[in-house]
Parts: sequence; C-alpha cells; structure tokens
Amino acid sequence: MLVKEQFFSFASKEEPFRLRCGKNLNEVQVCYESYGELNAEKSNAILICHALTGSAHVAGRHSEDDRKPGWWDEMVGPGKSFDTNKYFIVCSNILSSCYGTTGPQSTSPETGESYNLDFPMTTIYDMVNVQNELMKHLDVEKWLAVAGGSLGGMQALQWAVTYPEKVHSCIPIATAAQCSPLSIGFNWVGRESIIKDENFDDGNYPKGTQPEKGLSIARMIAHMTYLSDVSMQNKFGRKLQEMDDVNYEFTHNFQVESYLNYQGRQFVNRFDANSYLYITRAMDYFNLAEEGEDKSLAQALAKSLCQFCIISFSSDWLFPPYQSVEIVNALAENHRTATYCNIKSDAGHDAFLLEVDVLAPIIGNFLEQQLESCSNA
Amino acid sequence: MLVKEQFFSFASKEEPFRLRCGKNLNEVQVCYESYGELNAEKSNAILICHALTGSAHVAGRHSEDDRKPGWWDEMVGPGKSFDTNKYFIVCSNILSSCYGTTGPQSTSPETGESYNLDFPMTTIYDMVNVQNELMKHLDVEKWLAVAGGSLGGMQALQWAVTYPEKVHSCIPIATAAQCSPLSIGFNWVGRESIIKDENFDDGNYPKGTQPEKGLSIARMIAHMTYLSDVSMQNKFGRKLQEMDDVNYEFTHNFQVESYLNYQGRQFVNRFDANSYLYITRAMDYFNLAEEGEDKSLAQALAKSLCQFCIISFSSDWLFPPYQSVEIVNALAENHRTATYCNIKSDAGHDAFLLEVDVLAPIIGNFLEQQLESCSNA
Repeated sequence: MLVKEQFFSFASKEEPFRLRCGKNLNEVQVCYESYGELNAEKSNAILICHALTGSAHVAGRHSEDDRKPGWWDEMVGPGKSFDTNKYFIVCSNILSSCYGTTGPQSTSPETGESYNLDFPMTTIYDMVNVQNELMKHLDVEKWLAVAGGSLGGMQALQWAVTYPEKVHSCIPIATAAQCSPLSIGFNWVGRESIIKDENFDDGNYPKGTQPEKGLSIARMIAHMTYLSDVSMQNKFGRKLQEMDDVNYEFTHNFQVESYLNYQGRQFVNRFDANSYLYITRAMDYFNLAEEGEDKSLAQALAKSLCQFCIISFSSDWLFPPYQSVEIVNALAENHRTATYCNIKSDAGHDAFLLEVDVLAPIIGNFLEQQLESCSNA
Repeated sequence: MLVKEQFFSFASKEEPFRLRCGKNLNEVQVCYESYGELNAEKSNAILICHALTGSAHVAGRHSEDDRKPGWWDEMVGPGKSFDTNKYFIVCSNILSSCYGTTGPQSTSPETGESYNLDFPMTTIYDMVNVQNELMKHLDVEKWLAVAGGSLGGMQALQWAVTYPEKVHSCIPIATAAQCSPLSIGFNWVGRESIIKDENFDDGNYPKGTQPEKGLSIARMIAHMTYLSDVSMQNKFGRKLQEMDDVNYEFTHNFQVESYLNYQGRQFVNRFDANSYLYITRAMDYFNLAEEGEDKSLAQALAKSLCQFCIISFSSDWLFPPYQSVEIVNALAENHRTATYCNIKSDAGHDAFLLEVDVLAPIIGNFLEQQLESCSNA
C-alpha cells in the first residue's frame, strides 16, 4: 500500500487558532495521511490518533523501496482490522510534534524564526481541535470511530467529550482518563534530563543538532516504562553482550544495556527534543475529569454520546488496567455500557503496538458493529 | 542513644585484599558503628547491612543536637526489634561507598591521589569479605543474624552462602538472589546520566564538586523505582505546587515534580557520584546462583546452613515478591524451610524503611527465637 503525506493549513493573524493556555497560533500546518475512500454517506471515516513519538504515517509505505511501513501497519490496510477497503482512515501528526504538523521547531510567522520554547504550551484538547479543523477540511461530519493507544487514547477520550456529536465510537487503548503521578514523575525526569543538557541552550540548539545526551537519557527512561518486568526477563534476562563473563567495566556488559543505548541513540536521530518537552507536558496536563462540571470523570463522560471499546493490557504498569476500569465505571455511573477488554500480555505498555493478533479481531469486530449500527441509523 | 563512628583498617602491599575482579586493594579502611555489648558466649552479634546509599550510622545520634538519628533508628535500640540491650549490633559502611569505608574517592596509597575511576570494580562478594575482616577484628566468630534490605539483603544472602559456618540466621528483606534486567536497566540509565554529565570528567571532577545534573537525574530515576503507583497516587495525586491551576510552564507545576527535584538536590549534597557508579554496578553483577556449582540458586543455597527469615512487600516492583519466593523455593529444593512474609503495603520498595510497625514484631520474634536456639545449642 503506497501512501503519501498530505498537508493542510489553517489560521491567520485575523483568525488565529486559540489554545487552551490562552495564547494563539496564527498559522497551523497539519501533516496527515489518509487510506481508503470516504463513502457517499460519509459514514465510514475513522480517525487514528498516534502516541507520543508517532506520526501520521500509520500504515503502508511512502515508496516501493521504503524500508519500514507505518507504525500500525499490521492493523491498518486492505482486509485488516482498520480495513481500508471498508473505511476511510485518517491519521494526522499531532500539534507540537516534529513530523510535519506545527510545533516548536516550526517557523513563527511573526519572527520568521523557529519558535523553540516560545511555542505556546499545548494540550490534548488543542491537539483534538487541530484534528477537528482537519475533519472539516476533509468534509467529514462524524467519525465512525476515533481510536488510539497511550497518548492517542487520551485524544480519543477528549474527542468523545469535546465533540460528542461528531464521534460515533471511541476506542481508547492502553490509556487513562488522567495522567498519573507516576507518569508525570517519569516525564519530569526525562524533561529535566533534556533541559539540563549543556547543548539544550534554552531550546535554541542549532538546527541539525540536538541535546543528544539528555534526549537519549529521556528516551531510555521512557523506554523502560514501556516494557515490563516479565518482558525484560524473557527478552534479556541477565544475558551478556558478546562476552563470556562480565568485564568489570562501566561500558555495557548486559544485553539490556546495549538495547537501551541503541534506543536512546536511534531516538536522537528521529525526534526533536523541544517537541518531546511539549508533548510530554500535554500528557501531564491531561485530566478528562476537568471537563466535567463538578470535575468528576463521570460528569465529563456524561457529555459523550458514543459507544466505547476500552482496551488495557495486564502487564502495562505505565497505564495500568485499573485506569481503564475507572473509565468503564464512570460510564456505568451514567448508566452507560462499554466494551472492555483487559488483554493478558507480558508486553507492558508497548503491548498496544505488539499484541496485534489479539487486538485485531477485537477492534475489527467492534468497527464492523459500529458501521452496521451507523448504516441502520 | 549516642553512638560514634569507629574505624578499622587492614591490608597492605604485602598482604593485599584480593577482589573478585582479580585486582587488589593494598589498604582498606572500614567505618563502622556498634550498639550494645558482645556477650561472654559471643552468641549475640548481629550484622546489619545497609542499602545502596546508606551508611554505618544505622541508629542513634552522633551528638545530643544531631538533627536526625540513623537510617533504621526505629528498628535498632534499647527495647526495639534489634534490641541493643540483648544484642551486639554492628553496621559497617560498604566497600566503594563514601561514608568512611574505602571507595573511589579514597586516596590510593600507590599514587597519593584519589582513585576515582582507577578504583577496582567491586562486588557484593567483596563487600562481604570486608565485613568478614571487620568480624575477625571484633572477635566475633558467628553472627546470630545478618540482616539487610535491598542491596543490604543481597549482602545477607551472600554471607549465608560464602561463610555458612559464620551465619546462624539470615534476614534478607525486599531483595532478590539476582539483579533483574529491570533493575540493571534503571541502574544503567542512571549511570549513563552521570557519566555523560559535562562535569563528570571521567570521574576526575574536583573534590567538593559533583556532576550535579547527572547525579540528580540518576537519583530521581532511582527514587521513582522506590515508590509505587499507589503510594504516589496517595501522596501526590495530581496536586499542584502552590498554585491554583497549572501555569503552562516546564518548571514544576505538580507536587510530585517538586518532590523529585528536592530528592535530586539533596542527594548531590550527600552522596559521591563515583561511589554511585561502583555500588550500582556491584548490584547489577549480583547473581547468587553463580555461587552454585551448576549455577543454580538451589545449588548455591545448598551451601548455606542458617535459618532464613525472608521478607518482601506486595507493592515493591523493583524487587517484586516473586523474587523472594524464588529464594524460598530454592531452599525448599534443598528440603529446607524458611520463614517468609510478604507484607501487604502500598509503600513500594521503600517499604523496608517505612513499614516499621509490621517489620518490627516479625524480626523481633525471629531474632529472639534465634538467640534461644543458639543458647540451647
């Protein structure tokens, strides 16, 4: 499946895009990809929201010789769960990211220079509002489903509450209605590591460079939280890296150390440090309960009108299953039912990207039901 | 209870202290404290082993106006579990630490300068061998008990296997017979953060300075692993730091962020970065199974002769309860019984320092039984 990046821009000095923090953006570019065709009834559009360091490139390849397909290629394509023969799938790079949508590395129309840390603080709510502009641009009136894992699931939940009439169903995966202090804590340490890097220069590190040390440390910390004790035992155990015995050095002896190092190095090559700061902060600030009049999650979800398919993974300790159960319970307080699956998996938080064999039929069936109920309506 | 630091030195160029890595130390100083009196039968001596960043100062105060007592003061003293009216309690600062025992910041007798990273790599086995020299110096022939939490528990286990005839009982708390890849991973990221700090200078940072950024990041990472999701929810939740609403800044908004920052800053003032590298590496290398002839934990523990009181905490995810169960099971393979308690607690790994009310009677009773069985023998 060959796909290409598409771009859409909105907002101007006269009609700025207003952010939750109170500041404006006078120019917003959105990078997105779409797969399949919007049907005549416009009833088959699905929005997939990506996680922290993901991109609009959810599936397929950009060219025949593209080395790797999109980040959820096993889930999205002809005959797959997100069946591009049936559905019109949209995925856009989130606000503040570095893969084509406006973010801190974008050029400010006011100064003609990169925003860097002058970029306004953004929230999940703002990300969803950008997606809402894209939706209008695409002439979609209602999403058959909004789906996403981790930070993508937060966006899906925000959609359900902020634009209830535009969401037929919501599939939040490995996520939570609010960022826990554990997540906030790990995000904090990662950001501190970046901000304290001597090459960070208050976010003004020259183009083509990065606060490499800090960013790689931040990634290694985050990566630890995406795995699980069991998955690490199974994958690495105490296996050594190309040696018969420990070498009594601080260089990497254990395979898990080489693996983390590799993850850190790769990340520096592909993700902008300032974007990492903004997006993790947006995650910290996410608290769906605040959308409710009495700041309760039940009140917030009372605004939603959609069907929910909520999925968690047993070994996910970053967004543990009980956080998904909280959403189910808050819906129940509103006399609402939800499909909820806690998938038994050793893969930790990363399971939403890895446990495709289990995810595929659950999501595939749920989507078919939604399409049917939508067509019958 | 007023106590004072005591010092004991051993080893020389002629009679060096041989380390597991194959290198020697020609001078070893040990800082220790003792509480209570050794009885005439020499049957009441207990060794307490401290954790990663602890010291010999386990209880009491160094002066009347000492601001804080020792690190396990609620457990050690007259009438307490480690009852100084009954027992002769010894605690020594571990090899490679920075609280009085020889470590990387000590002066090398060969060069007259600080070892820094020329200090040889040390292991838990070496730490125990240093304690064994102290034991001889104190004229103790057999420990009634060797007890410790976390890294201290690893030392207790090593004692049981390396000097079986010298250990009557062993109390490993919140620990494991081997460092898991999860622990190794977090240790790795912490060390990388220190080593990559621009002020680290290959460990040659000037006396009185520290690679502050890297060391504080390392401490914050480690501190996260000492807490639990529930304890963080209870202690911090999403509470803000002296503000009514988030301020949309990267500075600390949430209480958990201020708390972590404080922990990082405090640590830089009290613990040497090079020591942190050496001791975490010793922890990584710990694998009691390697002491067994077929490298099985059961074979290793077959060498031990002592009674075991093994304690874990339900919410400890750094050294999860199943790692204690592995020790119990390995003893069972040898047709040996053990006292094992998995204490229900929300306090995470830190529980061994915090759940004193539950720990106290368990350990107090176990020690009394040991003293009785020792006296009857």
